[in-house]
Amino acid sequence: MNTAAAFADFRTYPLISALTGVQTLADRVLVKWADDRVSPFHHQWLRDNCPCPQCVYTVTREQVLEIVDVAQDLMPDAVHIDTEGCLSVDWQDGHASRFDPGWLRAHAYDDESRAERLAGKPKARLWHSDLQLPVFDYQALMNDSQTLLQWLLAVRDVGLTQVRGVPTEPGSLKLVAQRISFIRESNFGVLFNVQSKADADSNAYTAFNLPLHSDLPTRELQPGLQFLHCLVNDAEGGESIFVDGFAIADALRREDPGSFKSLCEIPVEFRNKDRHSDYRCLAPIIALDALGQVSEIRMANFLRGPFDASVEQMPRLYQAYRRFIAMTREPRFRLMQRLNPGELWCFDNRRTLHARNAFDPATGARHFQGCYVDRDELLSRILVLQR
Amino acid sequence: MNTAAAFADFRTYPLISALTGVQTLADRVLVKWADDRVSPFHHQWLRDNCPCPQCVYTVTREQVLEIVDVAQDLMPDAVHIDTEGCLSVDWQDGHASRFDPGWLRAHAYDDESRAERLAGKPKARLWHSDLQLPVFDYQALMNDSQTLLQWLLAVRDVGLTQVRGVPTEPGSLKLVAQRISFIRESNFGVLFNVQSKADADSNAYTAFNLPLHSDLPTRELQPGLQFLHCLVNDAEGGESIFVDGFAIADALRREDPGSFKSLCEIPVEFRNKDRHSDYRCLAPIIALDALGQVSEIRMANFLRGPFDASVEQMPRLYQAYRRFIAMTREPRFRLMQRLNPGELWCFDNRRTLHARNAFDPATGARHFQGCYVDRDELLSRILVLQR
Repeated sequence: MNTAAAFADFRTYPLISALTGVQTLADRVLVKWADDRVSPFHHQWLRDNCPCPQCVYTVTREQVLEIVDVAQDLMPDAVHIDTEGCLSVDWQDGHASRFDPGWLRAHAYDDESRAERLAGKPKARLWHSDLQLPVFDYQALMNDSQTLLQWLLAVRDVGLTQVRGVPTEPGSLKLVAQRISFIRESNFGVLFNVQSKADADSNAYTAFNLPLHSDLPTRELQPGLQFLHCLVNDAEGGESIFVDGFAIADALRREDPGSFKSLCEIPVEFRNKDRHSDYRCLAPIIALDALGQVSEIRMANFLRGPFDASVEQMPRLYQAYRRFIAMTREPRFRLMQRLNPGELWCFDNRRTLHARNAFDPATGARHFQGCYVDRDELLSRILVLQR
Repeated sequence: MNTAAAFADFRTYPLISALTGVQTLADRVLVKWADDRVSPFHHQWLRDNCPCPQCVYTVTREQVLEIVDVAQDLMPDAVHIDTEGCLSVDWQDGHASRFDPGWLRAHAYDDESRAERLAGKPKARLWHSDLQLPVFDYQALMNDSQTLLQWLLAVRDVGLTQVRGVPTEPGSLKLVAQRISFIRESNFGVLFNVQSKADADSNAYTAFNLPLHSDLPTRELQPGLQFLHCLVNDAEGGESIFVDGFAIADALRREDPGSFKSLCEIPVEFRNKDRHSDYRCLAPIIALDALGQVSEIRMANFLRGPFDASVEQMPRLYQAYRRFIAMTREPRFRLMQRLNPGELWCFDNRRTLHARNAFDPATGARHFQGCYVDRDELLSRILVLQR
């Protein structure tokens, strides 16, 4: 990092291509790069992103300038490429800004640069029943930050991982989750115990089979990552089943586009209620991001409220819902595995649906502990490890 | 509650209107009510919502039936109104369902019933500089559940409240927040201390003025409620300022619809980064709900990244952003008040923007503690208190 430009961020910005020319127009500057790309930067944008210590507080690296305090028609007096290859701008009001070429290229917003950035974003790798399950060793990810990073990238891109060699003392899960960051608490606690209980406040705490679902679809933001850690598993049954909800949504989109559309558009209420709480969330089962890509699945039949759609929509909603559930039962999507003591699942709760076969508590004890960590923490940790 | 229908919920469903007639069509039942309303219920919907103990586990009140396990064309054999006024359905496969008329009316999905439910939903009460600030007494809300409910309704509908008479021992805020539910942790901790620090990891922890903002726009889900509790306030300056972000968005929509549209459509990145974390969230500044109502404001100039929009969008985005910020500075929207020791603000962090004037640490100490609670917890607590 050779200039003050890097102050605004903790990342480094390697020089991709040198600045070779600059031309000032009425509302923007046109910058030319050594690889012949031309990037326009509006005067306002440049002034707004001035990295000098007057505009950005160097300790926090947060902006103190507010662009509204600068004249909307502020023009540069002089613009040039300085001896260090930086873009230097002298403003008509006397302020001066200087931009590192690596930083500038990384933030250029010509069409080509934006398309490049978009193409470089991480993408979900869809999987089916033949997934080669990414498995990691507890000691390795606790002690080695490269193993930790590989694990977190698998969680982000595949959405299903297993960790082995975890101590079977209750509470050990905390150490694994905190290797990422703090744990996201819920009304079920910081760690929750998955055991069959007489006074269950959720079907999860029975010995019933649980159909494929995401946890807490009853909340505005479903937890990002879910951990399930096996302490004891002597009971017959209780195998874990997973499907890639994104792969199912993808197949549904191709095989039954009308049903896909219904699940994207018609909101469904999920509810979780007991004597002390009453959570309700109304949202579509499939969420799309700004680019139309599937970004989230919200599904738990046992937490679903009565459908509340128009009389015209209702048959379409049932058809779509049935089709989706039927697909979660198709062998092509399902991965089944029994978890052993000392093993844990870590998966993307907003993508990878999980299920459990019924188990027989009379045949032995079964005790899992679980917790959640949000996607924000996962992505932040990855970015820091990649610095 | 006179029937098993109520098992599926913890609410009660008073009888609004009695069932007076029922007619079976090919795919639905038409129910007639004493007030002449007619509600269609598709056969699938009725079968799906059967409240019998075979379909709903009575302990958890969660559904065990999955509708996909019932034939899609299942028809009723016989439908009648029984001696207790319930809708009774005998299905062709031998199953029998019985629906409480209060519950059925509350879930009817004819257009009129749906419009009624929509009209009955809580609405934000927009406010300006002349807001009569809702103020509550600490002892009252800690000891009396009706005061607690009134406070929470004000938080929900007005989005800005003050509580007085709070102990000034550090940590006292926890008791207030936990009167709602558990606290939402962030990378700044469970409780955070707002004090001027030399090694600040956010401009919040300096003595600078902070422009009007929401906290943690850097996260996918901004915290729902924010608490700021004053322990010590001997420094000159540091007054709290609030605006109703929904009122500003509402005014912007009328006064400059183009800018309103830009802020709803063009995503902006917010970032929060230090040596240990790197949070980034890309989202529009104004979010709308499914009905086109403003549901969230996301704004903190000091956490904003460089705009990344197309060359065509950029001037429109700057115009909209400038206009919004300018509006947050207009006196018509601003409420300013200095917080005294033993007082706390509790506000909707996704609606009510907050600011702080600069203060002078040389003139005395200033120590606030803060924490977050999510909207889900607020709404759940209100529903339980209203049972």
